[in-house]
Amino acid sequence: MAIIAIPAPVIPQVLKEAGQKRVKTAIIISAGFSESGKKGKLLEKQILAIAKKYQMRILGPNCLGVVNPQIKFNGSWGGITPKKGNIAFISQSGAIYSPVVELLNQSGIGLSYFVSLGNKANISENDLIKFLKDDPQTQIIIAYLESFQKGQQFIKIAQSVSSKKPIIILKSGATMLGAKAAQSHTASLATPGKISDGAMQQANVIKAENLREFLNLIISFSQILSFRKKIGSRVAIVTNAGGPSVLATDAIAKTNSLSLAKLSPQTQNKLKKILSPAASLKNPVDILGDADAQKYQETIKIIAKDPQVDIVLVILTQQLGTEIEKTAAVCAQINKNISKIIIANFMGGENIKKARKIFQENNLTNFDFPQEAVRTLSKLHHWQVNKEKTTAKQQPTNKNQKSTAQKIIAKAAKEGKEQLNEIEAAKILNAYQIKTPKMIMVKNFHEAKIEANKIGYPLFLKIISSKILHKTDVGGVAKIKNAKQLKQSISSMAQLKGEGFVLEEAIKENIEIILGAKTDPSFGHIIMAGAGGIYTEILKDTAFRVIPISKNNALQMLRELRIYPILKGARGSRGVNLGKIERYLLAISQLIIDFPQIKELDFNPVICTSKSAVVVDAKIVLSPLPPKMI
Amino acid sequence: MAIIAIPAPVIPQVLKEAGQKRVKTAIIISAGFSESGKKGKLLEKQILAIAKKYQMRILGPNCLGVVNPQIKFNGSWGGITPKKGNIAFISQSGAIYSPVVELLNQSGIGLSYFVSLGNKANISENDLIKFLKDDPQTQIIIAYLESFQKGQQFIKIAQSVSSKKPIIILKSGATMLGAKAAQSHTASLATPGKISDGAMQQANVIKAENLREFLNLIISFSQILSFRKKIGSRVAIVTNAGGPSVLATDAIAKTNSLSLAKLSPQTQNKLKKILSPAASLKNPVDILGDADAQKYQETIKIIAKDPQVDIVLVILTQQLGTEIEKTAAVCAQINKNISKIIIANFMGGENIKKARKIFQENNLTNFDFPQEAVRTLSKLHHWQVNKEKTTAKQQPTNKNQKSTAQKIIAKAAKEGKEQLNEIEAAKILNAYQIKTPKMIMVKNFHEAKIEANKIGYPLFLKIISSKILHKTDVGGVAKIKNAKQLKQSISSMAQLKGEGFVLEEAIKENIEIILGAKTDPSFGHIIMAGAGGIYTEILKDTAFRVIPISKNNALQMLRELRIYPILKGARGSRGVNLGKIERYLLAISQLIIDFPQIKELDFNPVICTSKSAVVVDAKIVLSPLPPKMI
Repeated sequence: MAIIAIPAPVIPQVLKEAGQKRVKTAIIISAGFSESGKKGKLLEKQILAIAKKYQMRILGPNCLGVVNPQIKFNGSWGGITPKKGNIAFISQSGAIYSPVVELLNQSGIGLSYFVSLGNKANISENDLIKFLKDDPQTQIIIAYLESFQKGQQFIKIAQSVSSKKPIIILKSGATMLGAKAAQSHTASLATPGKISDGAMQQANVIKAENLREFLNLIISFSQILSFRKKIGSRVAIVTNAGGPSVLATDAIAKTNSLSLAKLSPQTQNKLKKILSPAASLKNPVDILGDADAQKYQETIKIIAKDPQVDIVLVILTQQLGTEIEKTAAVCAQINKNISKIIIANFMGGENIKKARKIFQENNLTNFDFPQEAVRTLSKLHHWQVNKEKTTAKQQPTNKNQKSTAQKIIAKAAKEGKEQLNEIEAAKILNAYQIKTPKMIMVKNFHEAKIEANKIGYPLFLKIISSKILHKTDVGGVAKIKNAKQLKQSISSMAQLKGEGFVLEEAIKENIEIILGAKTDPSFGHIIMAGAGGIYTEILKDTAFRVIPISKNNALQMLRELRIYPILKGARGSRGVNLGKIERYLLAISQLIIDFPQIKELDFNPVICTSKSAVVVDAKIVLSPLPPKMI
Repeated sequence: MAIIAIPAPVIPQVLKEAGQKRVKTAIIISAGFSESGKKGKLLEKQILAIAKKYQMRILGPNCLGVVNPQIKFNGSWGGITPKKGNIAFISQSGAIYSPVVELLNQSGIGLSYFVSLGNKANISENDLIKFLKDDPQTQIIIAYLESFQKGQQFIKIAQSVSSKKPIIILKSGATMLGAKAAQSHTASLATPGKISDGAMQQANVIKAENLREFLNLIISFSQILSFRKKIGSRVAIVTNAGGPSVLATDAIAKTNSLSLAKLSPQTQNKLKKILSPAASLKNPVDILGDADAQKYQETIKIIAKDPQVDIVLVILTQQLGTEIEKTAAVCAQINKNISKIIIANFMGGENIKKARKIFQENNLTNFDFPQEAVRTLSKLHHWQVNKEKTTAKQQPTNKNQKSTAQKIIAKAAKEGKEQLNEIEAAKILNAYQIKTPKMIMVKNFHEAKIEANKIGYPLFLKIISSKILHKTDVGGVAKIKNAKQLKQSISSMAQLKGEGFVLEEAIKENIEIILGAKTDPSFGHIIMAGAGGIYTEILKDTAFRVIPISKNNALQMLRELRIYPILKGARGSRGVNLGKIERYLLAISQLIIDFPQIKELDFNPVICTSKSAVVVDAKIVLSPLPPKMI
């Protein structure tokens, strides 16, 4: 291996020499490559070509290097070397290395590797996560990322790894705006943050909201996994302090996943015998301000035996008579001997320093504050639950549906059309078992009158034109109540010089959603579900996944929406046919797999009832050329 | 003063003796009062009666006591005594005292007072905040509260104090469910958390989301206020680390109040001269990993002179050549000599311990993590901005409008009606200049036919009945398109045996909002604005304030809504008449002041257009007896 830290312009020469000497890997620390403009980009291409020629792998350039504490190797300019541990740390920013290592070190936690990615010219997060899957030294994978290089590959790899080893990611750049102008709602709603959130969910990656949470997740995961305990959802609180336990209870109510454990009458009876009459026997169990270590011990032991309890959160603040260290030792002792998880929330500064040390030595997590304990636990639990769900495979396509769509898309491509018209889109949708309104193409009023009687009034009249993008704006759409209006509208729309007219069944207004798809530079094709109608752009109530999706993904997407209660049926209303929407999502996923040349797809609104769902407006935009599959 | 810490049952006797000895204040530490059931409640009443008799003030019972570090007085069982400082700490939980004091102490911050409220039987947060307003020892007021005892009084007092001294509150209990069943949407949407959030906004109180943020707010406020600097919104970032500055930038984009400062060309030119070519001259200014203290110094000085910059956030992580302590000293020195605010985000553990000390000694805030720095600064800025806004007084009522409403409400009270019918409600609304659809009461089809022609079809026919609560459910509402339908519906509704019928103009569907009011046990009458129609209960997109409200409050309420962009006019649509909605909110506020016997009020939907707003459905529920004004 070569570590290269000389000025960028002379690196190609040195790299060649290394190649000739059969060096297999080069870590290029130096900056001055693709991050620094045109010249640098060329230089980066040059070194990649050299690497290819000599079959070398390259880390960086523009990185901090690599640290392997297992063999006391520090090939970085990071200064400090972490302890040996079982956490592998991948980072797209070198600068985050030192604070993270310092703060983990303070909690007695070490690393198996640190790898700084830099420009990811050759080695990416995907290569590393794949390698770490079977690395016996690594139990947890953590990463700071500013981008996903090959998103689809990331999901596949992360899915296969995260069921074995937790992957915790802190992702920045989530609020940056999408760069390109969008033709569809889906594209304008698909911010980088929303897409990567969906992708991480899909791969059961644990997402840290910020650096503090990143550290909390790492520390607690590392400590809890060392006991190989299962992370349940029912939390019992033992406290000597009212306020903090109220804060913890509030925080539990805010999570979707955790709940306050309901203590059994037997447990409460046992507690009654040992606690003072003023103590609370219900969860949170307040053992009052004068509780000593023995009272904590007896209480925790009783509660941990209750089958309704998965996690015991022990809260302590210093009051007169509080035995801080002794209570810490009691918690550590019990945690070692039971299958339930004990989590501590001893609050204070210097006064709890010794207790912190006891916790650390015994792999028991102490959180600084109750809300942080709860938030972290809820994420650990979420991972545990999803880890056990198998990812169902998608059904292969029915050949008939593909060939129908094939003809239409080939014809459009031949004509150089970028957007399919209503009739074309409807035929494709119908081939994939997606319902559209009754629709008939007509040339003139005479034809229209006959067909309108078949569909029934009221109905919509729309102009057909590949030149008009927004038909409503130019008077190309009209609601028609009778033959008289039909005649008037056809004669006025004739001015627009379209290719004909469409008569479309009017679907009664109901709950509206949007379904869509688009291509993302990192993740390839992504799929979206969201609130439809006028609220689409305002509420931005959307969920994203990367195509292909599983049935479980489709269900999860709908559950993530704020309007999910409306869809499910709230306050006596019947809700919509959720199964139907799930099937539509799977059909879109399949359609895109069959035809990757579909660039953007917007079904908005999809009008949903308790029985069915009808795509009232379908927009399908094709790429001029089929994009390369990622 | 007497401090009483003996068993509860003997306290009345001791209190009497104290009264006879002319003791003026008693701190009752002991528990066993209203918090512990019926007997305790009686005991609490008893001690209050004794206090009244002897003109004594009582703190507690069931509290931790009082600490006054200025005179080294510790009348609590809190164990530790904080440093002397200028922060007054009021707490409804005694147990939060020790961790907060320990952690503030660690940052070199002391208290002017600590007061534990306990059961607030006699002395409440309101008494203390009022006292602290003019206390020369106190610059900042901080409180942990589980409830607001007299909410309306709290707002008045806090409003007058917060323009002088910041009030920072950590409020728990926000997720608890409202206890009583609700007759209106407004009541079911008014969770305790939503109401107290609105009240704190109204009083320009700074709300801490959690204990960590509580401490961050206290420490940074205390340090920044010591220099009497104004807290602006434009942040420039100086960093030696890419990742953390991306995280800070993300966090700034997420706030509504802060922005990344745009550096002037002059500033960028000056930076170009001192920084290496690879450095970023745009904000965030990345001075690269090898930056020493001198480079930080020169850069910060240049940036602080830019008139577009209010705050300089200095980020540092340890890299090779980083001069941690020297750079800290540089920041502290510059911060003392300029009017701009310098904030530090030095990240690490043991390695930045000395730097932390330098910051502390120089009253410069160092945040552990970039996102926490940004969130805290945005809250400080929000306070600063609102502090300068004068609270406009509400217009007094026009006598005519009051007397019209007076007659209707008096009649309803006489008849023992709890809910006003459409016609009655509409008359009151119209008196307060709130628009309703045209509405005519009719007895039979003959009358209806004549009046319907005046209003015009389509229109609504509704049954009048004080016995029917939900008319739609029993077929008491019908949309009528012609005289034939009118005849049919009148004859079928006659079965419901109402007091007559109402013909109501059909208002065309448009943007729907809900306006409402209800009484809250703590805050008295509160007012609400929110998203209307089917989204009301699902989106729970609401904003609350306590009545009376100012014009500015009304505007702020609308701004807080997620649907505000729809109201304002998004994506080319014209939006609604915001001024009209503001006037309606002020009119509701005035109506409730005039008639406090209104218990619940629901205008849902209010159909809004760019010109007007019409209350299509008004529900006004009266209290059986006028409630006592709080």
